[in-house]
Amino acid sequence: MNKCYWIWYQGDFELYHAMKQNFSRVERGFGWPAFWKSEGFRNRVAFRKRYMLVEETSFCVYSKAIGFVLVDDKKYPFGEKISCGPGNVKISVHAGCIESFPSIYIKGNAVYSDSSWQVEDYANPPVPAGYSRYFTDEKQEPSCWDYSESVYLPVSVEEYDGGVLYEFETELTAVLEIACKDGCRPFRVYCGESREEALDQEHCYYSWIPNPRTGRCPRCAVRYAYIPDCHKADIEVKAIHQYVDIPVRARFSSSDELIDRIWSVAAHTFRLCSGIFFIDGIKRDKWIWSGDAYQSFFVNQYLMADEDINRRTLLALRGNDPMTTHINTILDYTLFWILGIKAHCEAYSDQEFLHQIYPKMCTLMEFCETQLDENGFLAGREGDWIYIDWAELDKAGALCAEQMLYAECWRTMAMAGCMVGETSKRCEAYQKRYEELKKKIQTYYWDADKGAYIDSFTSGKRHVTRHANIFAILFDLADERQKKQIVNQVLDNDAIPQITTPYFKFFELSALAKMGRMEEVLSCIKDYWGGMLGRGAVTFWEEYDPNVSEEEQYDMYGDRFGKSLCHAWAASPIYLLARYFVGLEITDPAKEEYEIHPHLEHFDRVDCILPVGNKDIHILWDGMELKVTEDEKRDILA
Amino acid sequence: MNKCYWIWYQGDFELYHAMKQNFSRVERGFGWPAFWKSEGFRNRVAFRKRYMLVEETSFCVYSKAIGFVLVDDKKYPFGEKISCGPGNVKISVHAGCIESFPSIYIKGNAVYSDSSWQVEDYANPPVPAGYSRYFTDEKQEPSCWDYSESVYLPVSVEEYDGGVLYEFETELTAVLEIACKDGCRPFRVYCGESREEALDQEHCYYSWIPNPRTGRCPRCAVRYAYIPDCHKADIEVKAIHQYVDIPVRARFSSSDELIDRIWSVAAHTFRLCSGIFFIDGIKRDKWIWSGDAYQSFFVNQYLMADEDINRRTLLALRGNDPMTTHINTILDYTLFWILGIKAHCEAYSDQEFLHQIYPKMCTLMEFCETQLDENGFLAGREGDWIYIDWAELDKAGALCAEQMLYAECWRTMAMAGCMVGETSKRCEAYQKRYEELKKKIQTYYWDADKGAYIDSFTSGKRHVTRHANIFAILFDLADERQKKQIVNQVLDNDAIPQITTPYFKFFELSALAKMGRMEEVLSCIKDYWGGMLGRGAVTFWEEYDPNVSEEEQYDMYGDRFGKSLCHAWAASPIYLLARYFVGLEITDPAKEEYEIHPHLEHFDRVDCILPVGNKDIHILWDGMELKVTEDEKRDILA
Repeated sequence: MNKCYWIWYQGDFELYHAMKQNFSRVERGFGWPAFWKSEGFRNRVAFRKRYMLVEETSFCVYSKAIGFVLVDDKKYPFGEKISCGPGNVKISVHAGCIESFPSIYIKGNAVYSDSSWQVEDYANPPVPAGYSRYFTDEKQEPSCWDYSESVYLPVSVEEYDGGVLYEFETELTAVLEIACKDGCRPFRVYCGESREEALDQEHCYYSWIPNPRTGRCPRCAVRYAYIPDCHKADIEVKAIHQYVDIPVRARFSSSDELIDRIWSVAAHTFRLCSGIFFIDGIKRDKWIWSGDAYQSFFVNQYLMADEDINRRTLLALRGNDPMTTHINTILDYTLFWILGIKAHCEAYSDQEFLHQIYPKMCTLMEFCETQLDENGFLAGREGDWIYIDWAELDKAGALCAEQMLYAECWRTMAMAGCMVGETSKRCEAYQKRYEELKKKIQTYYWDADKGAYIDSFTSGKRHVTRHANIFAILFDLADERQKKQIVNQVLDNDAIPQITTPYFKFFELSALAKMGRMEEVLSCIKDYWGGMLGRGAVTFWEEYDPNVSEEEQYDMYGDRFGKSLCHAWAASPIYLLARYFVGLEITDPAKEEYEIHPHLEHFDRVDCILPVGNKDIHILWDGMELKVTEDEKRDILA
Repeated sequence: MNKCYWIWYQGDFELYHAMKQNFSRVERGFGWPAFWKSEGFRNRVAFRKRYMLVEETSFCVYSKAIGFVLVDDKKYPFGEKISCGPGNVKISVHAGCIESFPSIYIKGNAVYSDSSWQVEDYANPPVPAGYSRYFTDEKQEPSCWDYSESVYLPVSVEEYDGGVLYEFETELTAVLEIACKDGCRPFRVYCGESREEALDQEHCYYSWIPNPRTGRCPRCAVRYAYIPDCHKADIEVKAIHQYVDIPVRARFSSSDELIDRIWSVAAHTFRLCSGIFFIDGIKRDKWIWSGDAYQSFFVNQYLMADEDINRRTLLALRGNDPMTTHINTILDYTLFWILGIKAHCEAYSDQEFLHQIYPKMCTLMEFCETQLDENGFLAGREGDWIYIDWAELDKAGALCAEQMLYAECWRTMAMAGCMVGETSKRCEAYQKRYEELKKKIQTYYWDADKGAYIDSFTSGKRHVTRHANIFAILFDLADERQKKQIVNQVLDNDAIPQITTPYFKFFELSALAKMGRMEEVLSCIKDYWGGMLGRGAVTFWEEYDPNVSEEEQYDMYGDRFGKSLCHAWAASPIYLLARYFVGLEITDPAKEEYEIHPHLEHFDRVDCILPVGNKDIHILWDGMELKVTEDEKRDILA
């Protein structure tokens, strides 16, 4: 039997589901759709393929769209057996749909739907059809994602203040199902990522009146659930956790119990935030953010090595041409999208996807070139968000950190151009843009006296933060002498404010690891992430400042429970441990070649499995000797 | 009480309903969505307005979208009473919707929704909100159009070949409702624009199995309905005609009974094709075509004078920027869109709409400028449809008729630019483009020997048809001497093939009327449209060739019932009679000024009312004297 797929216009599946995702945020009774350009899928497409059939064959087209099948010059409705051949046959399927993207499924022996079909939208040249390994059956509907489900019962049920508090073993993305012993009555259930949140009926984010028929609540982030005015004996509560089943391929256990717990909680955090797309957090924002996704690509590579979620996330973030505003409205997040493709290709090669996405890389860079200031630096316009980090940066004029990302984008373009067979003239032009920008960054932002890059030169403040200096090390914009100065003058300098987000800890610790400061990296992982565990975390947080009291630890954005307690960007210990301590680096993803540069001297024992392409690499360190073996992974889904 | 409207992003209402319209064509059991770029509405918008409130006030926001209300810094859900003021208050409403366009309705004394709200889509600068006079109640849903309904019972019921044939007094766009005396059983009903079509179960376009619960069929074009295998006594059939109630303001009666019948059938044809948008025909295609709509604007001006349907149609046709393909895929239809705005403004002034649409006129013209050939003529690319008419034209290379429309577009741009306060430099540039193109048309296409414009110069055939020559007269591209030559050498020349579509008859008869050939025009109206009446027409047809036999008169596109028997472009006698015989010409639409240049010498008596702005102009001709009076129309809907 051939492999049939549901097919659609390339990228439409991702744009549609991304919109659903980005419109799913709820805050205290109202929906909060993401505040950026939300791109439409196409509504009218045509699928085409020519066949040379050696004998007569038949097929059937399934679709919920409005349309018909055209075989040479004869039209047929959907859902009807169509015979054709032998000989040359031209088949097209015309489909229109308003509410979601048009998709079709063709079942047949010789004629069937897969990515070899071309699809057009009447505005652009035809492209290969889009498809997903999750949609291969004619009874499915690609606009509905079928989540995997696991049922969790509460691990603790406690009568509290006239009601009942339920606790689950960990945080979940779940549909609560509530049954009353003596028939259903209207009541409200209050959910929380923390005990405090569930008990705070005024300030908790999610509260629901269960569907009177099914007793079910909408899917949401929940660890604790509180039902006022009731007794234990009257009510039964279960949580139906709904998730995208992306298998974890990595395993890590070591002589250091704290590190093992950090790995395990990071892995759980990361899986919760890895659905159809990489999202920031499961309670808030539930949105697809480019900078957050960029870090997820690195964790994914070492934990799940799932290429598909990267592709879906990158397609969702970029949207359609023409590009008119920054991704997520954030200048740096536009640039991280390009760098994300670099990370993706360095992990999986994925020539097919690079060829698909390369034109959009070009149009993104063209958009950026319309945003240059008089010095040729990439600057924000009114309405653009210059983010970099939740930190006090001097954001007057063009920011150093942004130019560093922009320079790395030009280097990425040179690499990508070369990989897709772009003219050498064009590739050289990319490389030249990189070299020029790199030079200009030195001239405008390097402060030799301070031994550091300044945030910005416009204000004259010559303000130094860790951020640009970390990028300078990571992206090799500083030379070796400068890098050492940066470590001394900035990273080791307590006068420079500490990083307070796990987001930038990822970059900082990567930079430190790159500079060989493994002991500092390990102790930071243990202090910072261990600190959250000490505060009772079962998933890692959006932000953690050890100096903030327990009473205020869930506070953020001036909101009592504003902080997300399950945030993807806090899962980076997985990357740091795998990439810098185990030391596994993929050197040729197409050939599944890798090198191991271990720094396991800090452990008595490490037993770990890490994925490289289809291989599972088993690394065993007994304190004396490193043993590396390979298992061929069976591809369970493709 | 203030006038509250449902509001949305300008144009989204039209794009959404246009998609529904263009996806509504059905042919023998399958849907046929229009084969051109179908534009998406926006999915995420924000509405904003600042108020200076003299006292505290309250309001409520209604919406089916996902979102919230922001009053200064405080968020509220939809559907809740919100109090604010006194003082300066900043209100924004955030709304996202996937399946249709986000719309909101704000009810309140001081704070309420109308076009004074600004709306943005996160990609472009804010624009005034869109609205419709048909959506003014919070219980409505702007994605659902509430049609007006009239019930028609059959005027004839006839047992035929074992079944029953029902005939209605005229053609309708109706939901058939079918009741069986002894309970419902599954059966199929066959619809036809003609008796022959309804009786031809294999070839008729629409056949339905009524909904078993309601007995209702989908809305479709129907004059005859046939139900096989049943008897008169067992079944009751009624037709629920669904329509947009646009009042007819004109009235026409004369001493010529045939002309009166032609007017009346044309008016009925036109009303059937005037729904949310001007469509081509009610059985087929049910699509919004730009060239067809262009003619409808002229008929509308004299029959209903409804500005709104023009605006909706123009917005629907143009879609979003960037423009990448021709409107309806047809080069000439792109150009007719610009000319349609000229027709609209000449009838209604409508500065507000012109200001709204002018940027899209500019981007359309910019798109055209990317499509010029080496001579600076507008040419088709692969995939473009060069239509002009169903006729044998020499379509090699750039077509004369297209350049004539293009020239008229530049003239329109000069006029529109001047009206919206464009710089005089820009307006002069438009005018210069017009002059240059006009000159080049003379050089390349005028054949002095033939006394005619040739279709094309590329093939060397120097082929002459009526089409370009008609445009040359209508758009004053020919000088007076040339015009006379054209009349002699082309229009009066039987060797040049006759026009066979009412579509181009509109242009031809307008040109003849402009040249004072009133007798020929009148006799053509009587012969051609009267000819259709002679064939039993109750609505006017897409095409009529008197030389085709009655057996083949419904045949078109190689299809037994392919011809549309109720086609908007066949309604032009209304325009021709009003504009050239009654002779009413609007000279200043803003001031409701008009002139009458009557040619009523061909009638013994004419009693007619024609609309000019809010005035109804009553024109009475008794064969001797012309009497003109004015009534102020009460604006019943605004």
